[in-house]
Amino acid sequence: MTRALGARFADRWITGESRRAQFMTAEGHHQALLPDLVVQPESVSEVQALMSAASAARVPVVPVGVGTSLEGNAGAVAGAVSVDLSGMDRVVEVAPEDLLCVVEPGVTRERLNEELRATGLFFPIDPGANATLGGMISTRASGTNAVRYGTMRENVLGLKVVLPDGSLIRTGTRARKSAAGYDLTHLFTGSEGTLGLVVEATVRLHGIPETVLAGSWPFETLEGAVETVIATIQSGVPVARMELLDPVAIRACNAYAGLDLPELPTLFVELHGSPAGVNEQRNLLAELGEAFSGGDLIMSADADEQRRLWRARHAALPAARAMVPGAVTWSTDICVPISKLAQAIANARDAIDAAGLVAPILGHVGDGNYHVFFVLRRDDPEAWTRAKLVNEGLIDFALSVGGTCTGEHGVGVGKREALVREHGEGAVALMRRLKTAIDPGQLMNPGKVFL
Amino acid sequence: MTRALGARFADRWITGESRRAQFMTAEGHHQALLPDLVVQPESVSEVQALMSAASAARVPVVPVGVGTSLEGNAGAVAGAVSVDLSGMDRVVEVAPEDLLCVVEPGVTRERLNEELRATGLFFPIDPGANATLGGMISTRASGTNAVRYGTMRENVLGLKVVLPDGSLIRTGTRARKSAAGYDLTHLFTGSEGTLGLVVEATVRLHGIPETVLAGSWPFETLEGAVETVIATIQSGVPVARMELLDPVAIRACNAYAGLDLPELPTLFVELHGSPAGVNEQRNLLAELGEAFSGGDLIMSADADEQRRLWRARHAALPAARAMVPGAVTWSTDICVPISKLAQAIANARDAIDAAGLVAPILGHVGDGNYHVFFVLRRDDPEAWTRAKLVNEGLIDFALSVGGTCTGEHGVGVGKREALVREHGEGAVALMRRLKTAIDPGQLMNPGKVFL
Repeated sequence: MTRALGARFADRWITGESRRAQFMTAEGHHQALLPDLVVQPESVSEVQALMSAASAARVPVVPVGVGTSLEGNAGAVAGAVSVDLSGMDRVVEVAPEDLLCVVEPGVTRERLNEELRATGLFFPIDPGANATLGGMISTRASGTNAVRYGTMRENVLGLKVVLPDGSLIRTGTRARKSAAGYDLTHLFTGSEGTLGLVVEATVRLHGIPETVLAGSWPFETLEGAVETVIATIQSGVPVARMELLDPVAIRACNAYAGLDLPELPTLFVELHGSPAGVNEQRNLLAELGEAFSGGDLIMSADADEQRRLWRARHAALPAARAMVPGAVTWSTDICVPISKLAQAIANARDAIDAAGLVAPILGHVGDGNYHVFFVLRRDDPEAWTRAKLVNEGLIDFALSVGGTCTGEHGVGVGKREALVREHGEGAVALMRRLKTAIDPGQLMNPGKVFL
Repeated sequence: MTRALGARFADRWITGESRRAQFMTAEGHHQALLPDLVVQPESVSEVQALMSAASAARVPVVPVGVGTSLEGNAGAVAGAVSVDLSGMDRVVEVAPEDLLCVVEPGVTRERLNEELRATGLFFPIDPGANATLGGMISTRASGTNAVRYGTMRENVLGLKVVLPDGSLIRTGTRARKSAAGYDLTHLFTGSEGTLGLVVEATVRLHGIPETVLAGSWPFETLEGAVETVIATIQSGVPVARMELLDPVAIRACNAYAGLDLPELPTLFVELHGSPAGVNEQRNLLAELGEAFSGGDLIMSADADEQRRLWRARHAALPAARAMVPGAVTWSTDICVPISKLAQAIANARDAIDAAGLVAPILGHVGDGNYHVFFVLRRDDPEAWTRAKLVNEGLIDFALSVGGTCTGEHGVGVGKREALVREHGEGAVALMRRLKTAIDPGQLMNPGKVFL
């Protein structure tokens, strides 16, 4: 394979250890591994040639982007080639008249939104990290705006995928809906690179709202904050963002991002709409919060203030890490039916405290999705053991109430066992049959999703 | 198989010709066929026993509901058993606190909404016909409310499915989102009974809006009506329903449903929201329509008037049929990117007129989805030939602009060739591989979706 393709890719065929080592970085808590070979294709035909050669040589393939995944989803595999798709980063087409655009997988969400600015449209999915669209498709990502705009599941209209045999298929259409055949778009979205290489995506865009109001909203109790979220969702108020930060998270963000928020359970809220519409939403929210010990809901239309707020929220992971010198963060990712959120978060807080761990709780709570950021030192294996137990307890509770072991980070290597607990042996066996039907040589991102 | 199971099912094991003949009725233009055997299971375990026996005996299985599908999706197959799931019609659970409910496949959408009324919630997907939820899952149905609330794709959270080997799996969760493994829910939604038998579904519910305004809106020109729709969608006005009826459709509905609307291109519009919100939406709409020859947009909050309007819309298919004595209707189903809708509909009108056919144009135009109702007599084969040519032209245009050959009716037997044109040989071959992975004996609804 190296003989056949190495010359064609030249310096994008990376065998030297120091350059390969750059692909070891990962945000997650899983150990970073050194890939054996890294290839950086720049076109669909290069991806096809690479995949055909890998297939012929039976060399496994691990797609990688900019390394922001959290469950080891793109971790290197011994004997495999890591395919870095971050260089395929063209915005192929923007079609504002159809509220969509076509991108290569290496485009990051921030760059996409910069390129869209003049159109009055934006791409709403915001997992915090400046991930690539390919990576976000891979894990079915969501984030802060999902409560209003949906996740990648709702915002990917179609894909171009290079299959393990090197052939290229198209899925989906540019229409808003279709009943034509099996929904391949949704099968590949969230398949974490285990079925093929996404080389192009058509995604939905949304109008930049006329008015945006954002602000932080302190509560006397964690329960009060969460009950306000539940009431908001049940009442159908179309909040654009509704994030929870517990007092530990607020303390971390204050210190790291230079904020001065009271160390209370706090909701970060954003409303989108017409001037009258957002005011109506704000009044509804304030009314709902009153019953649950809500403090003053002070919202601002000032773009700079809003940026400061969301920058602090997005810095929550490094802010948590900075709480303990030399620590790493392990971000769990639980999603429950909205009515079970208060109990889920109360359980989490109790379990963290009982285990004596440092761990802020944050979350895209409007979706019933929350994260615990365990702040752990690698030289304290005993704390990791306790964190693992807490994590298993969070998953157990979520599954017992019909929730999921991962709302947005994907399975990767960290949730493979939980996947079976969640869906049952039969459903996971069916997933494996689908995997084998598409990838009979088991070449695509081996060791991920399935045990 | 009959020996093994006939006694167990007793009079729900239907072999007599006159009773089997009741399952020949279908709304569509495809020839109704007499099933060889009809079985009416009443529980999941009966469906499993039936499927196991069918699998052992290599007898194909055709799932059927209440017979409202339009592309022969549930048509009988020689040598197969038709499994009538309409008797499995329990609303298993309503969980208003999580905005969801759990239903058996035979529940019809009207009955579901009756049962939900006291909760203040509703299930929005409304394909016109009083279809079963199972049938709507099968074809990935949508209808009038999809522009605001999405289609079955967006509203099915999870399924229980009996696989061809008789085993039972669960897909999805009760959480609003999940990144846990392959998206089996979306794979089965829209698979038209070719992969397994859906025996239970968890679907999303939505709050009954505080205020509903509805009305009809005449335009001087068809183009003006459609351009108004395009501008509405591009502006992001969250219309709940936005239906087009061309003058031929209006004439048919006037005659059939006792309306007195001017015979002009007309939009039926419905707005959901707070009193202030729907007024704001109405004003935006009226402003947009002014530029495109829009007449007066008169909307009413009166529930009876609204019911009359939508009953007339839903009666459009029989109304069209009544235009020509002894005729049947053939409803096409095209969906294009919104910016191409005006051209698509203008082309359709020209082609219909050039072919000398009677055919109103209607549609869920907010989604870019429209129907032509060809009104044809079975004894006029030459007119059918012309209709077929027109239909092919509509599909060709849709595919040339990135649209789809079916927005909501599914492939059935009528769109099998178009499916290949739409997605290409490679993608359809992949769908077949998935089919074979799940249904190696090719037992499930044979002859549908694939040629």
